[in-house]
Amino acid sequence: MALGHNNYGKAEVRLLRVDRDDDTHEIVDLNVSVALAGDLAETHLTGDNAHVLPTDTQKNTVYAFARDGIGSPEAFGLRLARHFVDSQPSIHRARVSLVEYPWQRLGPHSFARSGGGVRTAAVTYDGTTAWVVSGLTDLVLLNSTGSEFTGYIVDPYTTLAPATDRVLATSVEAAWRYAGDTGDWNELAARAWAALISAFVGTYSYSLQQTLHAMGQAVLDAVPEVVEVRLSLPNRHHFQVDLSPFGLENPGEVFNPDDRPYGLIEGTVLRDDAPPAGAAWSLRGTA
Amino acid sequence: MALGHNNYGKAEVRLLRVDRDDDTHEIVDLNVSVALAGDLAETHLTGDNAHVLPTDTQKNTVYAFARDGIGSPEAFGLRLARHFVDSQPSIHRARVSLVEYPWQRLGPHSFARSGGGVRTAAVTYDGTTAWVVSGLTDLVLLNSTGSEFTGYIVDPYTTLAPATDRVLATSVEAAWRYAGDTGDWNELAARAWAALISAFVGTYSYSLQQTLHAMGQAVLDAVPEVVEVRLSLPNRHHFQVDLSPFGLENPGEVFNPDDRPYGLIEGTVLRDDAPPAGAAWSLRGTA
Amino acid sequence: MALGHNNYGKAEVRLLRVDRDDDTHEIVDLNVSVALAGDLAETHLTGDNAHVLPTDTQKNTVYAFARDGIGSPEAFGLRLARHFVDSQPSIHRARVSLVEYPWQRLGPHSFARSGGGVRTAAVTYDGTTAWVVSGLTDLVLLNSTGSEFTGYIVDPYTTLAPATDRVLATSVEAAWRYAGDTGDWNELAARAWAALISAFVGTYSYSLQQTLHAMGQAVLDAVPEVVEVRLSLPNRHHFQVDLSPFGLENPGEVFNPDDRPYGLIEGTVLRDDAPPAGAAWSLRGTA
Amino acid sequence: MALGHNNYGKAEVRLLRVDRDDDTHEIVDLNVSVALAGDLAETHLTGDNAHVLPTDTQKNTVYAFARDGIGSPEAFGLRLARHFVDSQPSIHRARVSLVEYPWQRLGPHSFARSGGGVRTAAVTYDGTTAWVVSGLTDLVLLNSTGSEFTGYIVDPYTTLAPATDRVLATSVEAAWRYAGDTGDWNELAARAWAALISAFVGTYSYSLQQTLHAMGQAVLDAVPEVVEVRLSLPNRHHFQVDLSPFGLENPGEVFNPDDRPYGLIEGTVLRDDAPPAGAAWSLRGTA
Repeated sequence: MALGHNNYGKAEVRLLRVDRDDDTHEIVDLNVSVALAGDLAETHLTGDNAHVLPTDTQKNTVYAFARDGIGSPEAFGLRLARHFVDSQPSIHRARVSLVEYPWQRLGPHSFARSGGGVRTAAVTYDGTTAWVVSGLTDLVLLNSTGSEFTGYIVDPYTTLAPATDRVLATSVEAAWRYAGDTGDWNELAARAWAALISAFVGTYSYSLQQTLHAMGQAVLDAVPEVVEVRLSLPNRHHFQVDLSPFGLENPGEVFNPDDRPYGLIEGTVLRDDAPPAGAAWSLRGTA
Repeated sequence: MALGHNNYGKAEVRLLRVDRDDDTHEIVDLNVSVALAGDLAETHLTGDNAHVLPTDTQKNTVYAFARDGIGSPEAFGLRLARHFVDSQPSIHRARVSLVEYPWQRLGPHSFARSGGGVRTAAVTYDGTTAWVVSGLTDLVLLNSTGSEFTGYIVDPYTTLAPATDRVLATSVEAAWRYAGDTGDWNELAARAWAALISAFVGTYSYSLQQTLHAMGQAVLDAVPEVVEVRLSLPNRHHFQVDLSPFGLENPGEVFNPDDRPYGLIEGTVLRDDAPPAGAAWSLRGTA
Repeated sequence: MALGHNNYGKAEVRLLRVDRDDDTHEIVDLNVSVALAGDLAETHLTGDNAHVLPTDTQKNTVYAFARDGIGSPEAFGLRLARHFVDSQPSIHRARVSLVEYPWQRLGPHSFARSGGGVRTAAVTYDGTTAWVVSGLTDLVLLNSTGSEFTGYIVDPYTTLAPATDRVLATSVEAAWRYAGDTGDWNELAARAWAALISAFVGTYSYSLQQTLHAMGQAVLDAVPEVVEVRLSLPNRHHFQVDLSPFGLENPGEVFNPDDRPYGLIEGTVLRDDAPPAGAAWSLRGTA
Repeated sequence: MALGHNNYGKAEVRLLRVDRDDDTHEIVDLNVSVALAGDLAETHLTGDNAHVLPTDTQKNTVYAFARDGIGSPEAFGLRLARHFVDSQPSIHRARVSLVEYPWQRLGPHSFARSGGGVRTAAVTYDGTTAWVVSGLTDLVLLNSTGSEFTGYIVDPYTTLAPATDRVLATSVEAAWRYAGDTGDWNELAARAWAALISAFVGTYSYSLQQTLHAMGQAVLDAVPEVVEVRLSLPNRHHFQVDLSPFGLENPGEVFNPDDRPYGLIEGTVLRDDAPPAGAAWSLRGTA
């Protein structure tokens, strides 16, 4: 028997960083998870922890490094990932995953949690190469028209009627891989984010797959630094309610937004010359 | 033995209403719950359902009534509550509770779910009187300074150190009762909402209780139609991280936003001449 | 303007108590919430905290009192509630709410979290009287036959067909009030719990209301110490799937357990001579 | 630009199957998700859906196939996966993921949802090979002693004290890959499940990694049909509460079960001669 891939780390270290350099405070609200891999067979096989940097220490490191400021989720992740690998001989790969919760300013030192999606980043470092993946999740978008779904396969289990005007809604989960490990991460993320929204809004949709592809392509068009985009789009079905039993028409006005089941459309759009993904998407090193 | 208070109804009817009257669509996204009470002993005691309006029918009614438009959660709730009581002799009281999810416009028929709290309403009708309670929930607010907590009781179980500059954060749940059953509900809710935020931002806080009271008072000041405000404010503790083991100071910059336990501060502010609450807060008819 | 009812406290203090008195360990896993009311106007009106026992101190007290053992959620809650009121002149009422998570023994010091509902208790004390309410929640029960729903009101919004053989499922939330403040709480709770399940299983159901009433009555029959039972039963609809488009019958075998909306049936069963509820159900002192 | 890996399908089809062949009913409660891949570029690139089997049809197929009984999650998944690929030329790979919720019998046709983990299965089929992965999740285990953590790396960010007697708790997520695609799946799963629990209970633990490895090895030992085991073990920290400020000792009796952050230990144990994983773990075809 053999020990296969393994990693460990501290997950969901919650961190609020307040920048109080002047009267107008800035805040950054993060959820940081660390995963480390390396020369760790002994703790699995015998319980000898000599090569183990405790997850508690990883948590402390997150807080201590925050003392010098965050910059961006990507930059903060890069600092942490490089620290763990470069300072510990037994740690050969580190992956730092971050979620940034958005806040809207209400005053010089007052804020409200805002919606419209949360920002994500995942940085992986193996001692030589650093891979940077940025993304967003929980961005719920809806088009109240401009969507149809027709011309599909009909088999003995088909009951769906073609739709020539339907509500299209999804909760966007997107991640995009950069070619390099430097950049103005905040600006790049903002540009990708805008491209995703713009493509969703601007695409007359014959399928959610088509919308997905348009969104991925839009990021590649808008951000040359990006080489690959992955999207996961749950189809949040809005069923037009049949009001005919009550003597009423329903010309696309009354919908039941159903919870389950839901369609789930996932896809990747990448540049023809995209370099191999390496460990960008997983510490396991496979895509 | 006796049958005490009882009610029944359909909960969480999800409804998206699209107004397509012109090229720029409007949407209203609601979660509607109905609770009915009345002459219902037989179904409890013998299973005779002759007085029971099925919850499935209640759901149908929500969708059918949506055909004529929503107006506001309060107005829609009033229409529904009155319908159930006025059309069914066995139904003596109806309560319709509504949550409205906010969406931000992205285009003529494109929208993004936004954050910053969801709007709530609860309407109760007993055949004669209609009580209207409006509110909001999930509005997360944070002041990064301007808050202290000192001068409290010290007992043998006290370990808390006084704080003269702390982060104050809470997820606001507020509900306010109107004196009457008519009004421009959307405008009134917007005014109450603004008053709550403004009071949170503008109050130098010696306790979350004090902030709560200021918020309630602000609603009464801003909206004469309101006679009572109830607030539930979880204290979302942000603990200043001790960085001294790492040779670092932490001058109010690095915080751990903890999940549990949390303080929970609840309170009511009302006008001296507020009329009795009746069934405003509960179909049970007690406050 | 006036300050109305208010309370505050620490919510969701998580506590695992290990009894290691002999080689076979016992564990109790609790979630404890404290709410206090009293002479607290000053902290609301001026931010003067001289009468405030900090929620942090309440948390410490929960852990310190756990040092002497738990006994039962009810007994532990009584000790805590009495302590807060009796030791602090400004605290006039205390309510301690507890959830106990069940664990199944796997070995002398090994356990697995089990399902089948969690136990609850809520104890309120005002310096003179202690009210004890026990309960359970998250107990999901299902009868695959023995349930019908017919004979209900038909109105213009009715589309539901009568059902003479349906699946009946619910997630039981029950709470029962005791006449007194002493008892073998663990034994009493076990007896009430068994009565609830037995009544659900043994009742041929013409409506979920009828099942609710049978469940409440069963607790009163089985536990003379109980004077009132409150039940909240969401009707977890299981819709029989129409397989006729695929040339198949569905004789009550294939169901879609839907999430939303759901029926919600709530009711109270109490003894004719039940004493007034006082503050048993709410620190506000109303039922 | 290129379209990379993509798949789509219906997620979370909820299904209750009642077997009413005799007076004692049997129930199976499933959550079924389908993901399909194949010749699907056109719907992405042009919105031509001629190769798309709608997710609605996939849902119908799940319900229709349930008419013939479930057997086991694995067998039901195999039937569905083979159907989608073998009946649709454009579908080249199908993955069916299933969760089975456990119910305890209360009577001939009465049941209670039980805890102690839910069963999972994921079946992938590419027209030639079928891969079967079984597993479990949400199995929460706790040892109240028999666990230590010492001898780890100490660096400038270390504050953790060594523990020679701690509570060890985790929520087990396990998945194991079979060499073949036939077997008595229910019996095999039961054996793997028992091995996981037995290893957790029986291992004196020097690290959660060591426990993880023992659990994986136990499955390989107990089930020769399994060639690889993957485990994800969150370390649900239970912190011993410092009661010394209150003049109390705490000899391992009072613990605070904290929510976040948590350690997360992930690892794989596999046979030396395990065949390549192919698409067993992902439709993407990478491990």
